[in-house]
Amino acid sequence: MSYTIGLDYGSNSVRCIVVNVADGTELATEVFNYPTGDMGIMLDGSDHNVARQNPQDYIDGLEATVKNTIAAAKKADSNFDASQIIGIGVDTTGSTPIPVDEQGRPLGLQDAFKDNLNAMSWLWKDHTGYAEAAEITELAQKYRPQYLAKCGGTYSSEWFFSKILHCLRVDSAVFDAAYTWVEHADYMTGLLTGTSDPRIIKRCRCAAGHKAMFSDTWGGYPDKEFLSMLDPKLGELRDTLSDQTYAIDTAAGDLTSKWASKLGLPGGIPVAMGAIDAHLGAVGAGIGSGTVVQILGTSSCDMVVSPNTDDLPDVPGICGIVDGSVLPGFFALEAGQSAVGDIFNWFVNYIQPGGSKNGSHTALTERAAQLKPGESGLLALDWNNGNRTVLADQRLTGLLLGQTLHTKPEEIYRSLIEATAFGALTIINRFEEYGINIEAVINCGGIAEKNSVLMQIYADVTGREMKVSRSAQTCALGSAIAAAVVAGKANGGYGSFQEAQNAMTGVKDITYKPIPENHKVYAELYGLYKQVHDAFGTDSYSGKLNHIMKDLLAIKERCKG
Amino acid sequence: MSYTIGLDYGSNSVRCIVVNVADGTELATEVFNYPTGDMGIMLDGSDHNVARQNPQDYIDGLEATVKNTIAAAKKADSNFDASQIIGIGVDTTGSTPIPVDEQGRPLGLQDAFKDNLNAMSWLWKDHTGYAEAAEITELAQKYRPQYLAKCGGTYSSEWFFSKILHCLRVDSAVFDAAYTWVEHADYMTGLLTGTSDPRIIKRCRCAAGHKAMFSDTWGGYPDKEFLSMLDPKLGELRDTLSDQTYAIDTAAGDLTSKWASKLGLPGGIPVAMGAIDAHLGAVGAGIGSGTVVQILGTSSCDMVVSPNTDDLPDVPGICGIVDGSVLPGFFALEAGQSAVGDIFNWFVNYIQPGGSKNGSHTALTERAAQLKPGESGLLALDWNNGNRTVLADQRLTGLLLGQTLHTKPEEIYRSLIEATAFGALTIINRFEEYGINIEAVINCGGIAEKNSVLMQIYADVTGREMKVSRSAQTCALGSAIAAAVVAGKANGGYGSFQEAQNAMTGVKDITYKPIPENHKVYAELYGLYKQVHDAFGTDSYSGKLNHIMKDLLAIKERCKG
Repeated sequence: MSYTIGLDYGSNSVRCIVVNVADGTELATEVFNYPTGDMGIMLDGSDHNVARQNPQDYIDGLEATVKNTIAAAKKADSNFDASQIIGIGVDTTGSTPIPVDEQGRPLGLQDAFKDNLNAMSWLWKDHTGYAEAAEITELAQKYRPQYLAKCGGTYSSEWFFSKILHCLRVDSAVFDAAYTWVEHADYMTGLLTGTSDPRIIKRCRCAAGHKAMFSDTWGGYPDKEFLSMLDPKLGELRDTLSDQTYAIDTAAGDLTSKWASKLGLPGGIPVAMGAIDAHLGAVGAGIGSGTVVQILGTSSCDMVVSPNTDDLPDVPGICGIVDGSVLPGFFALEAGQSAVGDIFNWFVNYIQPGGSKNGSHTALTERAAQLKPGESGLLALDWNNGNRTVLADQRLTGLLLGQTLHTKPEEIYRSLIEATAFGALTIINRFEEYGINIEAVINCGGIAEKNSVLMQIYADVTGREMKVSRSAQTCALGSAIAAAVVAGKANGGYGSFQEAQNAMTGVKDITYKPIPENHKVYAELYGLYKQVHDAFGTDSYSGKLNHIMKDLLAIKERCKG
Repeated sequence: MSYTIGLDYGSNSVRCIVVNVADGTELATEVFNYPTGDMGIMLDGSDHNVARQNPQDYIDGLEATVKNTIAAAKKADSNFDASQIIGIGVDTTGSTPIPVDEQGRPLGLQDAFKDNLNAMSWLWKDHTGYAEAAEITELAQKYRPQYLAKCGGTYSSEWFFSKILHCLRVDSAVFDAAYTWVEHADYMTGLLTGTSDPRIIKRCRCAAGHKAMFSDTWGGYPDKEFLSMLDPKLGELRDTLSDQTYAIDTAAGDLTSKWASKLGLPGGIPVAMGAIDAHLGAVGAGIGSGTVVQILGTSSCDMVVSPNTDDLPDVPGICGIVDGSVLPGFFALEAGQSAVGDIFNWFVNYIQPGGSKNGSHTALTERAAQLKPGESGLLALDWNNGNRTVLADQRLTGLLLGQTLHTKPEEIYRSLIEATAFGALTIINRFEEYGINIEAVINCGGIAEKNSVLMQIYADVTGREMKVSRSAQTCALGSAIAAAVVAGKANGGYGSFQEAQNAMTGVKDITYKPIPENHKVYAELYGLYKQVHDAFGTDSYSGKLNHIMKDLLAIKERCKG
């Protein structure tokens, strides 16, 4: 028997699983909730855009979960022994860059910066760099349109350079003290393999390609001249970024004896290159040609792979089209919605409709399930956290219309679910408009697991069958699969991702098929959604309403002063 | 000492006051809550458009309040005696038509119809006749544009003929059994003066002119040929409608001895013609040239009077421009918002944000007051119950935009207050665009009395001082003033409304002045409001979003089916 470990670093916690390489079953799983901040996220009361993490939580979570998972695995199967573990894989959120010193140590772990939010991990959903994102987009439109063509036409505030440039602008002490910045995934694999030194660290293809405009076509990261136009200091930073990046079929290195002994693992086993959670989630869900994997959590990621051919078009609004970032031999296309579960959480936690008893997710979902499509007269946009795909615009906000004097909380709740489904359909349509056919939809993530009402609405809205990944932990499973691949056939693993996926992934028996009469109503509602979407989200619309939400945000920021 | 009685029939209750004619002070006031239905309103669970009242509540409320008020007045001042009462005035909601038999008795009070909602009073906010309203508007646009010119260009579902035609279409038994239909105000004055017989009843100018297209210009109510085109039976009904109507400076008749003895009042005292509550409210608030009276309750009415000259333009969207309906010698212009307090009530009662403790009006208002203008980033439209002025379109619904993942209930609550203020400003602007200058704003109604946060927001949004009427019961006071005028100087009353208003009305010391920096922000927000307002509410907008809310309502009605 061979096992691999999959580590999945999320927004609020890290999960570790021990997986049977033969069939992908999870022998044990343990979760460590980050102790710092608000559910692991360090916030700034005066600026909702701030979302940071404490790198110490990553290290503490690594030790706790691996040791606990091994103990739990032994309990679950007395034949299990840690010596049967043949490899480790890691996924993290991204783009989540960390400023590090010359040894690759996070500045936030050092006394001088331990109380400075800017020295911490800049979590994917940190939007402080929105102005810098716009600046980068504008400059690239003018001088390097090729950079934008592969990331949907707009550089996001959630991404690498927006965050680093923002730090440079607001906190030069941190920026100057940082030798370079590394993605969270790279920090983890560097740590485990003793390759943290920024001069030798292997950076993953996935975050570099999707979030930092890395492409072999132009020699890696954006060129120094371009970055210098943004700021000379950013140009200098370019020298610390390697010209090569690595996909998940590569090992970052071997587990150091120090970490092997700390964690109770065999020394020297390979650690696969890390990747962004959604990318390895797609692997764990069984992604392949013609399939979109929708990872539905607080936000969503929609992953598609397309055979590595030259005629793959640039798809406007798609956050990244990167060679080999999910599966070797395929281009990966990443799309997603900036908020899905977070919108429902907002409604339940902030608005608290009907008090805690009637306003829980469960109670609202039950009542929402009784409603027929179209019955509420409501229409919502799913932009409470901006729009990642297809508009790639963080400066958009939520919208609800159709309220009367009788509109009930469950009607609003359902309209918010429908809004996220309309958003998902907009993404699928965009892929297909550019010739990337979607034949199957596999869902994973907490919401896909738990919320059958939502899944049925997604089926009814999209007119497509919604399958659900067999594993509840596709991201961690994807990491474990990558570990099995880098371990190799000779060591009890696999020779290719296809072999590994065939053996280790699958979908559940339960599946959600569209109900024709519901789909018909939703087709009509989607027409209205799309019109409001385009009116408030694009400048191609003659009514010119697309400035409204941005003006309100500008007024808000000015008035909060 | 002379006193008059003012009776004010509202949506949920009737109020009676005894007023000192010398200075307008209220000696006593009593309220009777209608026992029937949901707070006095008979609803139909399957159709939110239904809002009816039980005429028996009017009669029971009449007896109870008058007797109790007289008793309370005696208690308040031992010198008071009912014999000092020199007249009675009545106001009611409107258009609130009642189907009556040949003797003028409401069908709803008869055994055959006592369980039939269609035989009851059709309360002003009943919107079941929306399709008939559109039909009347369309027909009038084609054949009788002059009818529409004086009522804002659109005939409303809240008005007389929409309701009667709807009854004809859905319940011919009730329609056929009705000899005619009378407004609630006319029913009350007919009852008190023994002139209920439809052949002799005096109909008030106010409801006829503002809600039933009555004008001396074309010989009274709409002509028989026009009504017959809608339905031959409606044409026949025209014969039961008199060609003359009467303003509030006229007596409907004298109090019958039967009612005098029932109520403990002197027999033979004059009963002034009734009028719509808002109109007499304007009188009680001290309306005059250059003043708008904003009556802020569950909905709002904005009344303006303009000297009776020939060059008064038709004002698009203003619900009625009627000669003498508020003050003799003036045209009265009526505008209003279909929901003001009702929107806040919806948020508190239906959405129940934060549970009952944190989601009360008081708690939300307190927290909303801490926010600065513009700080929430939210923008709302005040259309949860349609738009009465300036769009005159019941088929519009609410809209909220700008929500993030951090938007709090009090921010939404404040944005709803701001939305109603923007709506009020839109009305003031419309008057001024057509040459009717507004020099002063006097507010009255429950909200003006109680909610200083809202009043300050209104001042900041409109950039105008908000005065508040001295009396908390301007409608009832207006009725009492009308009673003093029809009683006449010789009997201890007044020779004119101007004399009566000078003596009996006034404003409070407390007043709300615009804060310049707030007004500046709101001027900016109003620009955004107006753009969204026009985009969703008018067809002049190139973006053509004005079908969205109507399509959603059509889908809603179809899907509920």
